[in-house]
Amino acid sequence: MSDVTPVPDPTARARLLDAVRFDSRGLVPVVAQQHDTGEVLMLAWMNRAALAETLATGRVTYYSRSRDALWRKGETSGQVQRLVDLRLDCDGDALLALVDQAGVACHTGRRSCFSWALREGEVRPIAEPLVDPQALYGGR
Amino acid sequence: MSDVTPVPDPTARARLLDAVRFDSRGLVPVVAQQHDTGEVLMLAWMNRAALAETLATGRVTYYSRSRDALWRKGETSGQVQRLVDLRLDCDGDALLALVDQAGVACHTGRRSCFSWALREGEVRPIAEPLVDPQALYGGR
Repeated sequence: MSDVTPVPDPTARARLLDAVRFDSRGLVPVVAQQHDTGEVLMLAWMNRAALAETLATGRVTYYSRSRDALWRKGETSGQVQRLVDLRLDCDGDALLALVDQAGVACHTGRRSCFSWALREGEVRPIAEPLVDPQALYGGR
Repeated sequence: MSDVTPVPDPTARARLLDAVRFDSRGLVPVVAQQHDTGEVLMLAWMNRAALAETLATGRVTYYSRSRDALWRKGETSGQVQRLVDLRLDCDGDALLALVDQAGVACHTGRRSCFSWALREGEVRPIAEPLVDPQALYGGR
Protein backbone atom coordinates (compact mmCIF):
# COMPACT_ATOMS: atom_id res chain seq x y z
CA MET A 1 0.00 0.00 0.00
CA SER A 2 2.94 2.28 0.58
CA ASP A 3 3.10 3.28 -3.07
CA VAL A 4 -0.27 5.04 -2.90
CA THR A 5 1.00 7.87 -0.71
CA PRO A 6 2.13 10.56 -0.66
CA VAL A 7 -0.09 12.36 -3.12
CA PRO A 8 2.20 14.53 -5.25
CA ASP A 9 -0.50 16.29 -7.27
CA PRO A 10 -1.90 19.41 -5.52
CA THR A 11 -5.21 19.09 -7.37
CA ALA A 12 -5.59 15.53 -6.18
CA ARG A 13 -4.70 16.57 -2.65
CA ALA A 14 -7.31 19.32 -2.74
CA ARG A 15 -9.92 16.80 -3.87
CA LEU A 16 -9.12 14.56 -0.91
CA LEU A 17 -9.13 17.50 1.50
CA ASP A 18 -12.57 18.51 0.22
CA ALA A 19 -13.91 15.03 1.03
CA VAL A 20 -13.19 15.50 4.73
CA ARG A 21 -15.74 17.18 6.98
CA PHE A 22 -13.72 19.25 9.41
CA ASP A 23 -15.62 20.32 12.54
CA SER A 24 -16.54 23.86 13.59
CA ARG A 25 -12.96 24.34 14.86
CA GLY A 26 -11.59 23.16 11.50
CA LEU A 27 -10.39 19.86 12.96
CA VAL A 28 -10.90 16.17 12.29
CA PRO A 29 -10.01 13.34 14.71
CA VAL A 30 -7.43 10.88 13.42
CA VAL A 31 -6.85 7.37 14.74
CA ALA A 32 -3.32 6.12 14.11
CA GLN A 33 -2.98 2.35 13.75
CA GLN A 34 0.21 0.39 13.14
CA HIS A 35 -0.44 -0.98 9.65
CA ASP A 36 0.87 -4.52 10.13
CA THR A 37 0.11 -5.37 13.76
CA GLY A 38 -3.22 -3.56 14.13
CA GLU A 39 -2.14 -1.78 17.33
CA VAL A 40 -4.08 1.43 17.89
CA LEU A 41 -1.31 3.87 18.73
CA MET A 42 -3.00 7.20 19.42
CA LEU A 43 -5.84 9.58 18.65
CA ALA A 44 -4.93 13.08 17.56
CA TRP A 45 -6.29 15.87 15.39
CA MET A 46 -5.58 17.35 11.98
CA ASN A 47 -6.61 20.62 10.45
CA ARG A 48 -6.64 21.10 6.68
CA ALA A 49 -3.00 22.20 6.60
CA ALA A 50 -1.86 19.20 8.64
CA LEU A 51 -3.70 16.79 6.38
CA ALA A 52 -2.37 18.54 3.28
CA GLU A 53 1.19 18.23 4.60
CA THR A 54 0.63 14.58 5.53
CA LEU A 55 -0.58 13.80 2.00
CA ALA A 56 2.23 15.81 0.42
CA THR A 57 5.07 14.30 2.44
CA GLY A 58 3.88 10.85 3.49
CA ARG A 59 4.92 11.68 7.05
CA VAL A 60 2.10 12.19 9.49
CA THR A 61 1.58 15.76 10.68
CA TYR A 62 -1.07 16.56 13.25
CA TYR A 63 -2.44 19.79 14.64
CA SER A 64 -1.59 20.43 18.28
CA ARG A 65 -4.57 21.99 20.04
CA SER A 66 -2.45 22.94 23.05
CA ARG A 67 0.24 24.63 20.96
CA ASP A 68 -2.12 25.85 18.22
CA ALA A 69 0.42 24.77 15.63
CA LEU A 70 1.27 22.00 13.22
CA TRP A 71 2.81 19.02 15.00
CA ARG A 72 5.15 17.07 12.78
CA LYS A 73 5.05 13.78 14.63
CA GLY A 74 8.57 12.79 15.63
CA GLU A 75 10.18 16.11 14.74
CA THR A 76 11.63 16.43 18.25
CA SER A 77 11.57 12.82 19.43
CA GLY A 78 12.53 11.10 16.18
CA GLN A 79 9.52 8.81 16.59
CA VAL A 80 8.05 9.55 13.17
CA GLN A 81 4.98 8.01 11.58
CA ARG A 82 5.20 7.10 7.91
CA LEU A 83 1.79 7.10 6.27
CA VAL A 84 0.92 3.76 4.69
CA ASP A 85 -2.76 4.27 3.91
CA LEU A 86 -5.47 6.71 4.89
CA ARG A 87 -9.11 5.83 5.47
CA LEU A 88 -12.18 8.01 5.79
CA ASP A 89 -15.30 6.99 7.66
CA CYS A 90 -18.88 6.82 6.41
CA ASP A 91 -19.72 10.32 7.68
CA GLY A 92 -16.50 11.84 6.37
CA ASP A 93 -15.70 13.27 9.79
CA ALA A 94 -13.05 10.88 11.12
CA LEU A 95 -9.82 9.50 9.67
CA LEU A 96 -7.94 6.25 10.24
CA ALA A 97 -4.25 6.53 9.40
CA LEU A 98 -2.45 3.27 8.85
CA VAL A 99 1.13 4.11 9.72
CA ASP A 100 4.54 2.67 10.24
CA GLN A 101 5.52 3.98 13.67
CA ALA A 102 9.24 4.36 14.36
CA GLY A 103 9.90 3.51 18.01
CA VAL A 104 7.08 4.60 20.27
CA ALA A 105 3.96 6.69 19.69
CA CYS A 106 3.45 7.95 23.24
CA HIS A 107 5.25 10.86 24.88
CA THR A 108 5.52 8.70 28.02
CA GLY A 109 7.80 6.33 26.11
CA ARG A 110 5.12 3.66 25.70
CA ARG A 111 4.41 2.11 22.34
CA SER A 112 0.73 3.14 22.40
CA CYS A 113 -0.93 6.10 24.07
CA PHE A 114 -3.80 3.75 25.03
CA SER A 115 -1.74 2.02 27.69
CA TRP A 116 -4.12 2.39 30.64
CA ALA A 117 -7.02 0.00 31.24
CA LEU A 118 -10.16 0.76 33.21
CA ARG A 119 -10.57 -2.43 35.17
CA GLU A 120 -12.29 -3.26 38.44
CA GLY A 121 -12.69 0.39 39.32
CA GLU A 122 -9.04 1.26 38.78
CA VAL A 123 -7.09 2.90 35.99
CA ARG A 124 -4.08 0.63 35.57
CA PRO A 125 -1.08 0.92 33.25
CA ILE A 126 -0.88 -2.19 31.08
CA ALA A 127 2.37 -1.36 29.34
CA GLU A 128 5.69 -0.05 30.54
CA PRO A 129 7.77 2.65 28.82
CA LEU A 130 10.10 1.20 26.19
CA VAL A 131 12.08 4.43 26.01
CA ASP A 132 12.95 6.98 28.68
CA PRO A 133 10.88 10.11 27.89
CA GLN A 134 13.92 12.19 28.85
CA ALA A 135 15.79 10.51 26.04
CA LEU A 136 12.98 11.41 23.62
CA TYR A 137 12.62 15.04 24.55
CA GLY A 138 15.90 15.93 26.21
CA GLY A 139 15.62 18.38 29.04
CA ARG A 140 12.26 19.83 27.94
CA MET B 1 -10.66 -9.99 29.53
CA SER B 2 -14.43 -10.19 29.37
CA ASP B 3 -14.74 -10.86 33.10
CA VAL B 4 -13.42 -7.39 33.99
CA THR B 5 -16.50 -5.58 32.69
CA PRO B 6 -19.14 -4.52 33.36
CA VAL B 7 -18.35 -2.64 36.55
CA PRO B 8 -21.19 -3.39 38.96
CA ASP B 9 -20.06 -1.10 41.78
CA PRO B 10 -21.33 2.50 41.36
CA THR B 11 -18.41 3.87 43.40
CA ALA B 12 -15.93 2.11 41.16
CA ARG B 13 -17.76 3.39 38.08
CA ALA B 14 -17.63 6.94 39.43
CA ARG B 15 -13.87 6.60 39.99
CA LEU B 16 -13.38 5.52 36.36
CA LEU B 17 -15.62 8.32 35.09
CA ASP B 18 -13.59 10.85 37.06
CA ALA B 19 -10.40 9.65 35.34
CA VAL B 20 -11.73 10.72 31.93
CA ARG B 21 -11.25 14.28 30.72
CA PHE B 22 -14.42 15.15 28.87
CA ASP B 23 -14.14 18.14 26.54
CA SER B 24 -15.92 21.50 26.83
CA ARG B 25 -19.04 19.88 25.35
CA GLY B 26 -18.84 17.08 27.92
CA LEU B 27 -17.75 14.54 25.31
CA VAL B 28 -14.84 12.16 24.79
CA PRO B 29 -13.96 10.46 21.49
CA VAL B 30 -14.07 6.66 21.54
CA VAL B 31 -12.34 4.35 19.07
CA ALA B 32 -14.05 0.97 18.79
CA GLN B 33 -11.76 -1.90 17.83
CA GLN B 34 -12.74 -5.54 17.36
CA HIS B 35 -10.91 -7.20 20.25
CA ASP B 36 -9.62 -10.28 18.46
CA THR B 37 -8.97 -9.16 14.89
CA GLY B 38 -7.75 -5.62 15.57
CA GLU B 39 -10.12 -4.08 13.02
CA VAL B 40 -10.88 -0.45 13.80
CA LEU B 41 -14.66 -0.35 13.48
CA MET B 42 -15.69 3.23 14.15
CA LEU B 43 -15.05 6.46 16.02
CA ALA B 44 -17.90 7.87 18.07
CA TRP B 45 -18.46 9.93 21.21
CA MET B 46 -19.53 9.34 24.77
CA ASN B 47 -20.72 11.73 27.44
CA ARG B 48 -20.52 10.82 31.10
CA ALA B 49 -23.93 9.15 31.08
CA ALA B 50 -23.06 7.02 28.04
CA LEU B 51 -19.80 5.87 29.60
CA ALA B 52 -21.56 5.13 32.90
CA GLU B 53 -24.15 3.03 31.10
CA THR B 54 -21.46 1.23 29.10
CA LEU B 55 -19.58 0.34 32.29
CA ALA B 56 -22.78 -0.67 34.08
CA THR B 57 -24.13 -2.90 31.32
CA GLY B 58 -21.11 -4.09 29.35
CA ARG B 59 -22.91 -3.05 26.16
CA VAL B 60 -21.47 -0.04 24.41
CA THR B 61 -23.60 3.09 24.55
CA TYR B 62 -22.50 6.25 22.75
CA TYR B 63 -23.81 9.80 22.70
CA SER B 64 -25.32 10.85 19.40
CA ARG B 65 -24.38 14.44 18.63
CA SER B 66 -26.97 14.67 15.86
CA ARG B 67 -29.81 13.35 18.01
CA ASP B 68 -28.50 14.83 21.29
CA ALA B 69 -29.34 11.57 23.03
CA LEU B 70 -27.81 8.34 24.26
CA TRP B 71 -27.22 5.91 21.43
CA ARG B 72 -27.38 2.32 22.55
CA LYS B 73 -25.38 0.78 19.75
CA GLY B 74 -27.45 -1.89 18.02
CA GLU B 75 -30.72 -1.00 19.74
CA THR B 76 -32.46 -0.62 16.38
CA SER B 77 -30.19 -2.61 14.10
CA GLY B 78 -29.34 -5.48 16.45
CA GLN B 79 -25.64 -4.88 15.70
CA VAL B 80 -24.60 -4.55 19.34
CA GLN B 81 -21.11 -4.08 20.70
CA ARG B 82 -20.21 -6.03 23.81
CA LEU B 83 -17.45 -4.34 25.78
CA VAL B 84 -14.39 -6.53 26.27
CA ASP B 85 -11.91 -4.00 27.64
CA LEU B 86 -11.65 -0.24 27.88
CA ARG B 87 -8.44 1.75 27.52
CA LEU B 88 -7.66 5.36 28.34
CA ASP B 89 -4.92 7.34 26.67
CA CYS B 90 -2.01 9.20 28.25
CA ASP B 91 -3.86 12.52 28.32
CA GLY B 92 -7.07 10.99 29.63
CA ASP B 93 -9.05 12.54 26.79
CA ALA B 94 -9.62 9.61 24.42
CA LEU B 95 -10.89 6.07 24.89
CA LEU B 96 -10.21 2.84 23.05
CA ALA B 97 -13.03 0.32 23.46
CA LEU B 98 -12.14 -3.27 22.65
CA VAL B 99 -15.44 -4.77 21.64
CA ASP B 100 -17.08 -7.83 20.24
CA GLN B 101 -19.12 -6.46 17.34
CA ALA B 102 -22.20 -8.43 16.34
CA GLY B 103 -22.61 -8.25 12.59
CA VAL B 104 -21.53 -4.91 11.18
CA ALA B 105 -20.54 -1.62 12.82
CA CYS B 106 -21.45 0.74 9.98
CA HIS B 107 -24.91 2.05 9.16
CA THR B 108 -24.11 1.45 5.48
CA GLY B 109 -23.99 -2.29 6.20
CA ARG B 110 -20.18 -2.43 6.04
CA ARG B 111 -18.20 -4.14 8.77
CA SER B 112 -16.15 -0.99 9.54
CA CYS B 113 -17.09 2.66 9.17
CA PHE B 114 -13.54 3.28 7.87
CA SER B 115 -14.27 1.63 4.53
CA TRP B 116 -13.13 4.41 2.23
CA ALA B 117 -9.50 4.92 1.25
CA LEU B 118 -7.94 8.17 0.04
CA ARG B 119 -5.77 6.94 -2.79
CA GLU B 120 -4.39 8.60 -5.88
CA GLY B 121 -6.62 11.59 -5.46
CA GLU B 122 -9.82 9.61 -5.13
CA VAL B 123 -11.98 8.49 -2.24
CA ARG B 124 -12.65 4.85 -2.98
CA PRO B 125 -14.75 2.28 -1.13
CA ILE B 126 -12.56 -0.65 -0.15
CA ALA B 127 -15.29 -2.84 1.34
CA GLU B 128 -18.79 -3.73 0.22
CA PRO B 129 -21.87 -3.85 2.44
CA LEU B 130 -22.30 -7.24 4.11
CA VAL B 131 -25.87 -6.43 5.09
CA ASP B 132 -28.56 -4.41 3.34
CA PRO B 133 -29.00 -1.19 5.37
CA GLN B 134 -32.74 -1.49 4.75
CA ALA B 135 -32.66 -4.80 6.59
CA LEU B 136 -30.86 -3.13 9.51
CA TYR B 137 -33.14 -0.16 9.92
CA GLY B 138 -36.38 -1.22 8.26
CA GLY B 139 -38.23 1.49 6.42
CA ARG B 140 -36.66 4.34 8.34
